[in-house]
Amino acid sequence: MKAAVFQGPGRVSWQVVPDPRPDDPGDAVVRVDVVTICGTDLHILKGDVPEVTPGRVLGHEAVGTVVETGRDVRTVRLGDRVLISCISACGRCRFCREGRYGQCRGGGGWVLGHLIDGTQAEYVRVPFADLSVHPLPSAVDSADAVLLADIFPTSYEVGVLNGRVRPADTVVVVGAGPIGLAAIATARLYSPGQIIVVDLAESRLAAARKLGADATATAGEGPEQLVEDLTDGLGADVVMEAVGIPATFELCTRMVRPGGRVANIGVHGKPAELHLEDLWIKDVTITTGLVDTSSTPMLLRMMAAGRLPAAELITHRFELGQMEQAYDVFGRAADTGAIKVALGGPQHTAVEATDVTDAG
Amino acid sequence: MKAAVFQGPGRVSWQVVPDPRPDDPGDAVVRVDVVTICGTDLHILKGDVPEVTPGRVLGHEAVGTVVETGRDVRTVRLGDRVLISCISACGRCRFCREGRYGQCRGGGGWVLGHLIDGTQAEYVRVPFADLSVHPLPSAVDSADAVLLADIFPTSYEVGVLNGRVRPADTVVVVGAGPIGLAAIATARLYSPGQIIVVDLAESRLAAARKLGADATATAGEGPEQLVEDLTDGLGADVVMEAVGIPATFELCTRMVRPGGRVANIGVHGKPAELHLEDLWIKDVTITTGLVDTSSTPMLLRMMAAGRLPAAELITHRFELGQMEQAYDVFGRAADTGAIKVALGGPQHTAVEATDVTDAG
Repeated sequence: MKAAVFQGPGRVSWQVVPDPRPDDPGDAVVRVDVVTICGTDLHILKGDVPEVTPGRVLGHEAVGTVVETGRDVRTVRLGDRVLISCISACGRCRFCREGRYGQCRGGGGWVLGHLIDGTQAEYVRVPFADLSVHPLPSAVDSADAVLLADIFPTSYEVGVLNGRVRPADTVVVVGAGPIGLAAIATARLYSPGQIIVVDLAESRLAAARKLGADATATAGEGPEQLVEDLTDGLGADVVMEAVGIPATFELCTRMVRPGGRVANIGVHGKPAELHLEDLWIKDVTITTGLVDTSSTPMLLRMMAAGRLPAAELITHRFELGQMEQAYDVFGRAADTGAIKVALGGPQHTAVEATDVTDAG
Repeated sequence: MKAAVFQGPGRVSWQVVPDPRPDDPGDAVVRVDVVTICGTDLHILKGDVPEVTPGRVLGHEAVGTVVETGRDVRTVRLGDRVLISCISACGRCRFCREGRYGQCRGGGGWVLGHLIDGTQAEYVRVPFADLSVHPLPSAVDSADAVLLADIFPTSYEVGVLNGRVRPADTVVVVGAGPIGLAAIATARLYSPGQIIVVDLAESRLAAARKLGADATATAGEGPEQLVEDLTDGLGADVVMEAVGIPATFELCTRMVRPGGRVANIGVHGKPAELHLEDLWIKDVTITTGLVDTSSTPMLLRMMAAGRLPAAELITHRFELGQMEQAYDVFGRAADTGAIKVALGGPQHTAVEATDVTDAG
């Protein structure tokens, strides 16, 4: 089969690799129907995630069709259309028993495209298949569902739940990439008073407004002053970091009110400065986190009910074999306007690469 | 009257200042019977709290007797023996209405010995007296009660509650000064599995063991390895920072387990490095906070019932006029073994300066 193989910093290639087989009775092999590229994959290419070594097949988000199962797999059958979660779960360790699958100590957690070969391939081996894939209801489109593999549960759990968004809250989202946009959409489930979004790119802020942002600012437009003005000088109740660099994290800690919460969602490669000389007295809670995907079944129900935006987030579509081109378009998002790319399609139909934004 | 006046970095003097009078109908004037010096006062002397300007009377912890009240004061009367809380509360602002008195926007919060003259004096004006002093039950000794003005509620609220200590948890306390020791005592109210305490001084670790620490380590003894060994390599559920320097804060973030909590209690004067490149994936919650003293009534009941240690924490006693000597002994705690000093005594009885540790 062919797969997207990490070649070391800055390089990924679509090349022939051995077909995956079940290694363990709990494994499933899934034919990949729709796959996407995550901001985390770009962090890997930047060298921010040193555990990923050259030769690794990347990718941790996909929708596919089960083609082989180990003898212990019970919850899915051959031919089932499934969502492959970015988090695999052994289901037996201390953390899995608490629903904290992201911290699984039994061989799961975030392993796909990280510690084992991932989903940016024609086929993928999924460990612990019973707890690591979700059969898809027919009402949910495969390309939409791929957004539930990582970005929706991540934004919801690591941003909205960790940030404890409450009705009437002022919520600030720093970074209007796919994670930031999904954070806007899922924060709205808790009826905040206002959502303020900060990004470098006006095109992303336009997408943010479409998804429900009440006010937006580019970095140059003084986001701190805007938040101050919109909160009577108090600061925001919840600030979510959805970029992953020290400057944006530090910006978040300056915009939060006394007693507020900073929820870091970004993948970081460098330390940030924590201004404890200001913050020690301020009753601030800062959270970090890897998604558990414990919310995925709920989000699937919301998507099936048409209550999560999806079409707005997928700006570019490619054939599976156009992986390198898709990486290029997604990696140059500031120029291409890419938010989320989808590769492949139902029944492996070849799809012309289309800029959905332009096609309107 | 005489009072301890901040003279700028490094200097405090016991000198004559004007007698305080009620400024507002909600004020009370309290004769100070017992007062103490806080680690925060030493941070002020170091210059870590720049809002405190020369000429300010220091101190935010005392027990005294009400000698004058404004016409709106309802909950205390002349002659009442009261605990003066380190936090004053207007009771009317958004934060007070949520019980977050430490963040009071109506002129309260931590103001005594910070933004207005404090308790290290013969008399002190207490604003918002109805919500800022607590009448003392006769079962509670004045010198013991002074520990409820700040250190017990701070350790309990900012350490134990923010850190969400649960039964069976491994709790690490970094810093075994008064705050760290009170954190041990109040963490035990939640039946943790083990408490591990780290400090530079063996004498403080001895006090920690007396108060219930299960294991202790000096900085040189490899506290990280000890925590790893005692948690099967996982790290601690809760780590409390009770020192206030970057190195100890950073140590805390290295000892916490995935999914664990770091509760900062220390007063900081400098930024720390936050290693987001390790922490982003780790599901860690970091909290900072100023005490609200919303727990003070509960802690008073526990003290009246003999369920909080107090005598173990007060190592040195002085007469009120021996303020400069007391600052010297407390400021050189590493040499003098001072944990908490108490100045004054019931009915203003002159008390010989006594090293309680030596006197047994």
